[in-house]
Amino acid sequence: MAAQTDVMVMVLAGGQGSRFWPLSRAALPKQFLSLGDSGESLIQATVRRVVPLVGQANIRIVANAQLEALIHKHVPGAKVICEPMAKNTAACIGLAAASALAEHPGSDPVLIVLPADHAIKDDQRLRSALDEAAQRARESDMLVTIGIPPTHPHTGYGYIKKGKPLNGRSYSVERFFEKPSLERAQKYLEQGGYCWNSGMFAWRASVILESFKSFLPPMAQGLAEIQAILKQGADGTPGNARIAEIFSNFEAISIDFGVLEHAKNCVVVDAEEFGWSDVGSWDQWAESFQRDAEGNLVKGDAVVIDSRGCVIRSANRLVAAVGLNDVIVIDAGDAVLVVSHEHVQDVRKVVEELKRRGRADLI
Amino acid sequence: MAAQTDVMVMVLAGGQGSRFWPLSRAALPKQFLSLGDSGESLIQATVRRVVPLVGQANIRIVANAQLEALIHKHVPGAKVICEPMAKNTAACIGLAAASALAEHPGSDPVLIVLPADHAIKDDQRLRSALDEAAQRARESDMLVTIGIPPTHPHTGYGYIKKGKPLNGRSYSVERFFEKPSLERAQKYLEQGGYCWNSGMFAWRASVILESFKSFLPPMAQGLAEIQAILKQGADGTPGNARIAEIFSNFEAISIDFGVLEHAKNCVVVDAEEFGWSDVGSWDQWAESFQRDAEGNLVKGDAVVIDSRGCVIRSANRLVAAVGLNDVIVIDAGDAVLVVSHEHVQDVRKVVEELKRRGRADLI
Repeated sequence: MAAQTDVMVMVLAGGQGSRFWPLSRAALPKQFLSLGDSGESLIQATVRRVVPLVGQANIRIVANAQLEALIHKHVPGAKVICEPMAKNTAACIGLAAASALAEHPGSDPVLIVLPADHAIKDDQRLRSALDEAAQRARESDMLVTIGIPPTHPHTGYGYIKKGKPLNGRSYSVERFFEKPSLERAQKYLEQGGYCWNSGMFAWRASVILESFKSFLPPMAQGLAEIQAILKQGADGTPGNARIAEIFSNFEAISIDFGVLEHAKNCVVVDAEEFGWSDVGSWDQWAESFQRDAEGNLVKGDAVVIDSRGCVIRSANRLVAAVGLNDVIVIDAGDAVLVVSHEHVQDVRKVVEELKRRGRADLI
Repeated sequence: MAAQTDVMVMVLAGGQGSRFWPLSRAALPKQFLSLGDSGESLIQATVRRVVPLVGQANIRIVANAQLEALIHKHVPGAKVICEPMAKNTAACIGLAAASALAEHPGSDPVLIVLPADHAIKDDQRLRSALDEAAQRARESDMLVTIGIPPTHPHTGYGYIKKGKPLNGRSYSVERFFEKPSLERAQKYLEQGGYCWNSGMFAWRASVILESFKSFLPPMAQGLAEIQAILKQGADGTPGNARIAEIFSNFEAISIDFGVLEHAKNCVVVDAEEFGWSDVGSWDQWAESFQRDAEGNLVKGDAVVIDSRGCVIRSANRLVAAVGLNDVIVIDAGDAVLVVSHEHVQDVRKVVEELKRRGRADLI
């Protein structure tokens, strides 16, 4: 177990999850949904899993200010780092690092970065992987990514090619790969030596900020100024006009595109399988449940007749499916989604169309 | 125009229409739904169309007693002949004939029999066809069916092969055919000389009851007794225990199977096309509307993306369809149906399953 004082967990909770419409909404993004059977929201589960690792006091939730009330409702007593606005993961992670250094002057904490909206089955194995990642980050100037051993040729995940072995289950990163075609994903699986990129990271605050200097210099400069303002005891980020001004000029880029794919000091922890899913879309959500003999998954009140490979989630009404193949039906109170399995990534197009129509009631 | 005094219209309104679930329910069968854009229910339209032909006073609505209140709500001032229970069309039509003769002793009215739940576009042409049918029925001891010129090889309708020409547009019936295969329906269309069986009939009360004597003798005997009871001034059918007892013993058989397919005195009026549909299922409902460029039909609040040949009817919520082909989505308040076009006849299986589960709230 890592010492608890020098490790902080930064939970990234600013996402929208528009592929989870109609359940996810602007005012209730995916990380606040209870997608399993437990009634626990994804963000609640994320926090619960790491409390034994670093203690409640060392957990921060990073999100844009509009979500602050919702975060406190889901995680009572949460310490929130407010982004003035959503600016993708690089700016979010940079703010978290600047904030940690301002809060602990003279120290250089290890930051474990976790998306708030992933599903994980084996908490113990997760903590073991995070612990190892934190150790690597503490003892070296490395950017550590948690890699997941692929179980099937998934086309929705990024892949990491492992390089030479380091301590424990850690390897240097030879290369990051974007979401592959099915053919390419199959090749990765056959060849071996690849991990899924979980989007969970560990690094020391100073190390990630140093990387920003190399690959996102304007953002690094802005973050240095934000850190100085925070160190002077500024009362949090959202109310500070200068921080908002700096932040608004940041490039909206992911940490992967903006930093990791260019950095030479990347390490991957080849974690033991711990039942991880990024729950990126409704079909991935369904993957975590057992199907019936016809390959259907039913949650809620439904009648299913002559149908195969369907996913049905009903809220307050009965859903009847007749003669369907590989169709997903998601019922929310005020909207119902019917989408073919192959088009499940296009659910975000519904949200775009609703935006275009000015349907604030439904997005 | 037929003389108004000797013609009565019998509207058969006892059906369930379970293929129109989730809109149709036991307490609100299909004939009480407003399926067009006008807001008028099917039964209201059925009555409205024949008022100019026979006058309101000569219209009777035949249905089981549970529907009486609903009938009066839809057709204020309606004269209702109550079946003690639903027993298919032969018993229903027999009761209507016995009732008409009891009401008009010494006369023998022509009865026009109309299903309450069909859609018709050209009222004028309908009345012209019914008028001709009534004339045939008045002047001969014939069982007259309204035939519809087929416009395409429909597999959901019965067919009638026309025999030798009689007066006007009337022909002797060579044979009735059940719902055909697509191949057979195509053959009928190519050969010509066939009509769709509309389920609309005309005959004199005495003539149909005479036919019952030949083909359904126990029912004929029971109907004679019911007629005698009604003639003695019995206060309607539902309250009379003896009528209920007789009726309960009737065979539940359709007029087509029970009488018409055996009778030698059948006539078909080869009517001018008047935009008729029996609206037997959701796909037939959709046939009466114009599709958009992608072959989709949308009624209500919906977003349709990358979909072809779909039918969407939403009630109080938004329906989003993504990547679907030939799927029908019907949203009611408490249930939503998603059915592939090929399985549209199986919607009744949903109702059967709900019955099995004791879901009185949804059937």
